Amino acid sequence: MAQTVIKASGKLEEFDRNKLVNSLIRSGATEDVALEIARNIETRITPSSHTRHIFKIAKKLLRQYSKVSDMRYSIKKAIYSLGPAGFQFEKYIAGILRAYGYVTEVGKIIQGYCVSHEIDVFAKKENYIIIVECKYHSNPGNSTDVKTALYVHSRFNDIKKGFESSPENHFTFQQGWLVTNTRCSVDALRYAECVGLKIVSWKYPEKESLEKIIETKKLYPVTILSSINKNALEMLFRNDIVFAKDIANMDEETFSKKSGIDIHLAHLLKNEADALCFPNNKNQ
Amino acid sequence: MAQTVIKASGKLEEFDRNKLVNSLIRSGATEDVALEIARNIETRITPSSHTRHIFKIAKKLLRQYSKVSDMRYSIKKAIYSLGPAGFQFEKYIAGILRAYGYVTEVGKIIQGYCVSHEIDVFAKKENYIIIVECKYHSNPGNSTDVKTALYVHSRFNDIKKGFESSPENHFTFQQGWLVTNTRCSVDALRYAECVGLKIVSWKYPEKESLEKIIETKKLYPVTILSSINKNALEMLFRNDIVFAKDIANMDEETFSKKSGIDIHLAHLLKNEADALCFPNNKNQ
Repeated sequence: MAQTVIKASGKLEEFDRNKLVNSLIRSGATEDVALEIARNIETRITPSSHTRHIFKIAKKLLRQYSKVSDMRYSIKKAIYSLGPAGFQFEKYIAGILRAYGYVTEVGKIIQGYCVSHEIDVFAKKENYIIIVECKYHSNPGNSTDVKTALYVHSRFNDIKKGFESSPENHFTFQQGWLVTNTRCSVDALRYAECVGLKIVSWKYPEKESLEKIIETKKLYPVTILSSINKNALEMLFRNDIVFAKDIANMDEETFSKKSGIDIHLAHLLKNEADALCFPNNKNQ
Repeated sequence: MAQTVIKASGKLEEFDRNKLVNSLIRSGATEDVALEIARNIETRITPSSHTRHIFKIAKKLLRQYSKVSDMRYSIKKAIYSLGPAGFQFEKYIAGILRAYGYVTEVGKIIQGYCVSHEIDVFAKKENYIIIVECKYHSNPGNSTDVKTALYVHSRFNDIKKGFESSPENHFTFQQGWLVTNTRCSVDALRYAECVGLKIVSWKYPEKESLEKIIETKKLYPVTILSSINKNALEMLFRNDIVFAKDIANMDEETFSKKSGIDIHLAHLLKNEADALCFPNNKNQ
C-alpha cells in the first residue's frame, strides 16, 4: 500500500523508497544497508511525516549502521588479537559456553576407547556433555578444512565409545563441536552436517555464528579494549577475566585487586569496558 | 660347544667370541653389528680355521655391514629427495603397491557417503580395495601425529559407507592405510591398531616397514641415483619410471626413448641403476 508524506513545499506525495535508497547510497551506505534502512523507515511513516524528517531519521540510522559495522570489524580484530597461540581463544570459547550455562574445563585429558585425548573445551550442562575442538587461525585467509572436521569427528567417536564402555559414567555425550574464528570449507560444513558434528565459525550457522553469539550476548573479548597490552592480557586470562563485561560488572578497585593490574591501567580499562557495555549510561 | 681354532703361532686354542667382538668394535662396528658378525663367523669355523683367517673374514663382513648401513642411509635420503611436495612420494608408494600386485591410481576422487575425497593412492587387487593416505614430511623431525590417523580413519569410513550404500559396487573395502616416510607418534600407532587402520612408516611395523619393503624387493627410488637431477626426475615420474630397477630392467636406448632423457645422461643413470640392482654382475 502506497504511503503519503508531506514534501518541503507542504504538498503531499507518495513515499518513494528508491529515492531514499539512492540518497543513502550517496551518503556512503552499501546497497544492502540502504535497503534495510529504507524498509525500517517504511514501518515508521505516518500520513503526517515530512520528507525532511524522514531523511533525518534515515541519516541517523545510517550512522548507527556504520557504528555496528565498525564494531563488527573491531570484534573480529579483537578475536585475532587473542593469538598467536590458540590457548586464549580456547579460554574465550569456554567463557562463551559458561555464558550459556555450561560448566567448562579447558585442556582436559580424557581417556577414549583407543587413546587419550586433550580436549580444548569440555562443557557440561545437567547430564549432557559437549566436546569442543577450537581452531584458531591468526591469518584470516586460512579456512578450516574437511581434514579438521574428519579428525574432530573421529576423536568425538573415540571419546564417546570410551565413555559408553565405562560402567561408572552417568553422562550423555551430546555432540562434538568445532569452533573456529575463520571460515570453514564447503566440504567441512557438508561433512559436519552429515555426521552430526556442530560447526560454529565466524559467519556460520547464520543465526548462531560466533559473530551473532558475541553481538547478542555482548560477549566482547577483553582484547577489544584499546588500552590493553600483552602483560595485562596475560594477567586477565590467568584470572579468568575474558570478557569486557566481566570488567564492566566490577568496580574499579575489585577489578584491580582481582586481576593484579595496577590501579592506573585498571581505571582506563574499566572506563573503556563501561563505555562498550553500557553505551547509553553517559546520556542517562 | 666350544670350538677350536689355530693361532698364528700354530698352537690350538678355544674360539673366543668376546675377543672377536671387541676387535670389531675397535674397527668401528657398533656392538649389535659386532655381535651379529661374531655369530655369523661361529657358523663358519672348522677345526682347521686359523684365527688370522677368521679375523680377515670378520673384517670383510664388517665392510659389507657398513655398506648396508650406508645404503640404508642413502635410501632414506633418496626418499627425502622425492619432496618438497608429497606428489612424487605418492607415485612412489603407488609403485611399491604395484610391485605387490595391486592396480593403482594416484589422486583419484571418490564420492564418500557425506563428501567426496581425493585419495592419494587407490589400490585394487582382485575384489579388494585399499585406500592409502600418504604423509610425506621433508623434515625428518616431523612425525605423523594422532590427528592424521584420526582423519584418515574418518575418511576411510566415509568412503566405505558411500561404497556400501551404492548397489552397483562389487568391491570390498579391505583397509585404510597411512604411509609416511618419517615416524608416527605412539598415540597414532595405538589408535590405528585399535581401529584397524594399517600404518606403514619408515621403521614400522618391524617386518613390513617402508625400509624393509624397499630392501626386500630392492625398490630403490630413482632419486637414489647420483646423476639424477630435477629435470630428469620430472621426466621419469611423468613416464612412471619410479624405481632404479625400472631403469636397470631396460636397455639404454629403450630407457632414453621411454623417458625422453638424452642418451648421455641416460647412459650414466643406467650404469648407476645397474650397479645398484645387480651389484654382483661386475665380478661375474
